[in-house]
Amino acid sequence: MTHTIPYQGIWPALLTPLTPTLDIDIPSFARHSKSLFAAGCTGVTPFGTTGEGPSFSVAERIAAVDGLIAGGVPAGRILVSTSAAALPDAVELTRHAVQSGCFGVLLLPPFFLKGVPDQGIIDCYAQVIDKIADERLRVVLYHIPQVTGVRLSHHVIASLMQRYPKTIIGIKDSSGERLGSLAFAKAFMPPLQVWVGNEPDLQVMAAQGSIGAVSGVANVMPRLLQRLVAQFDGANAARDMARVKAFIGILGGYGMTAAFKGIMAILENDAGWRRVRAPLVALSDAEFERLQVDMKSFALDRAAD
Amino acid sequence: MTHTIPYQGIWPALLTPLTPTLDIDIPSFARHSKSLFAAGCTGVTPFGTTGEGPSFSVAERIAAVDGLIAGGVPAGRILVSTSAAALPDAVELTRHAVQSGCFGVLLLPPFFLKGVPDQGIIDCYAQVIDKIADERLRVVLYHIPQVTGVRLSHHVIASLMQRYPKTIIGIKDSSGERLGSLAFAKAFMPPLQVWVGNEPDLQVMAAQGSIGAVSGVANVMPRLLQRLVAQFDGANAARDMARVKAFIGILGGYGMTAAFKGIMAILENDAGWRRVRAPLVALSDAEFERLQVDMKSFALDRAAD
Repeated sequence: MTHTIPYQGIWPALLTPLTPTLDIDIPSFARHSKSLFAAGCTGVTPFGTTGEGPSFSVAERIAAVDGLIAGGVPAGRILVSTSAAALPDAVELTRHAVQSGCFGVLLLPPFFLKGVPDQGIIDCYAQVIDKIADERLRVVLYHIPQVTGVRLSHHVIASLMQRYPKTIIGIKDSSGERLGSLAFAKAFMPPLQVWVGNEPDLQVMAAQGSIGAVSGVANVMPRLLQRLVAQFDGANAARDMARVKAFIGILGGYGMTAAFKGIMAILENDAGWRRVRAPLVALSDAEFERLQVDMKSFALDRAAD
Repeated sequence: MTHTIPYQGIWPALLTPLTPTLDIDIPSFARHSKSLFAAGCTGVTPFGTTGEGPSFSVAERIAAVDGLIAGGVPAGRILVSTSAAALPDAVELTRHAVQSGCFGVLLLPPFFLKGVPDQGIIDCYAQVIDKIADERLRVVLYHIPQVTGVRLSHHVIASLMQRYPKTIIGIKDSSGERLGSLAFAKAFMPPLQVWVGNEPDLQVMAAQGSIGAVSGVANVMPRLLQRLVAQFDGANAARDMARVKAFIGILGGYGMTAAFKGIMAILENDAGWRRVRAPLVALSDAEFERLQVDMKSFALDRAAD
């Protein structure tokens, strides 16, 4: 497991800043990434669910990864979601990631059709991996069935591990189902890393040996997220968990990505951060004002949170 | 409503034949389309759900529409699904359809994110229509919430009709929820046409004034489908409905698209028709043999069904 060394720590599930024409604001995207490195994050994960990834075309996603690298983000610290409904798109995005020197890819099964058989899901991953045919490729299996409608079963994961032991390095479990996450850990960690997307489960998973997270909350509280994993039984553990739960409680009053972006707009004093791509809707002015009040009470401390 | 004249009759939701490398077999696609015209169908609908549409890239879908037209399918008889998770993809596909002279487009809301607000869905349709900005564009709203996880509410439909009265011409309701389909008809037909994807509801909807269907079953029983709509209260109505239900009963024993393609393989004596793109899985040899027995009992009569 030579690859476990870099694959640790916090990789924020990057929010995607947009220009007034709702294109990706690449300079802002790179600036945001570098601020997260400055806060101690190991890497960044563009184009996950929080990052509205499938709302962007293949060309937009490739240009943005190129732009991050050109803007000073080390390619080896990018774990990019190359998930797509069409396999040729997933292949094109994944090939670009490998050829650009990205650390690896986060990959969903195709998410349009429902009720698909396990064998079909295995076929999808296998076809992408076989078409890339590059031993530099690292794949993190991405499980978020409440969004995709497609579950990754233990059979799918075990089959892929057996077939591609050097390529499949982990599972990002964003199901929010703690018992399922623990079952993944018991069955597959090691050799895989199992990382949860649901921040309230981070300490429990860290106690099982999980050494990192791809986290939406880490966009705005990277230091606290690092402690939840690396110091899960430390002196601040209970306080940190209470704080992350309070933060998630605030988010819950709004649409999640729109609220995250509203918080970025507050922290960066840049209203442009509020923009989202349809089918999401940006916070209304009234919601944004309420969020400002909520966040004032929360008193986010960027040097500590 | 000058556009109701061509928008009637049966538009099969085309199955997508594949080559041994799992690319679209364009000559076979055109041949299949023309055989359906020869059986009396008004038009064809490529790249819906039965046609595995979102499993193909934008470039593949554009090349296939070009190939249908070059292969002798009249553009004005193509209603193409231009649905995509990313709006720029939907715009590119829709622009190509309009510029190619296609009859119109069948358009889903983006289908990755869930729990999206009505306003976000309205924004998606509006952004596509506004970016095309071509009065030749005709849009059929596509409702299949059990697959997309995104519902089209009456508010969304009414808002879009009010904003784009000449562009929005119909609703394809593949929800399989008869009461919902009747409610759509009561609320919006006319001026919209409401077409159901669930064949057992066709006669009920025809009695409400629905004059057509985009139907998967029509790939293999186009004549019977035409009677279910145009002669919904005719002498053969009860027998035809019993027959379509028996056929759907056979399909239900297999994965739907894989079974449709297996039946095409039997009818055309061409095993290549069995191919599907992952995440679907083709019928196994054992399933295909069982399907052959099922279809022998069903005794499909291509001159009558």
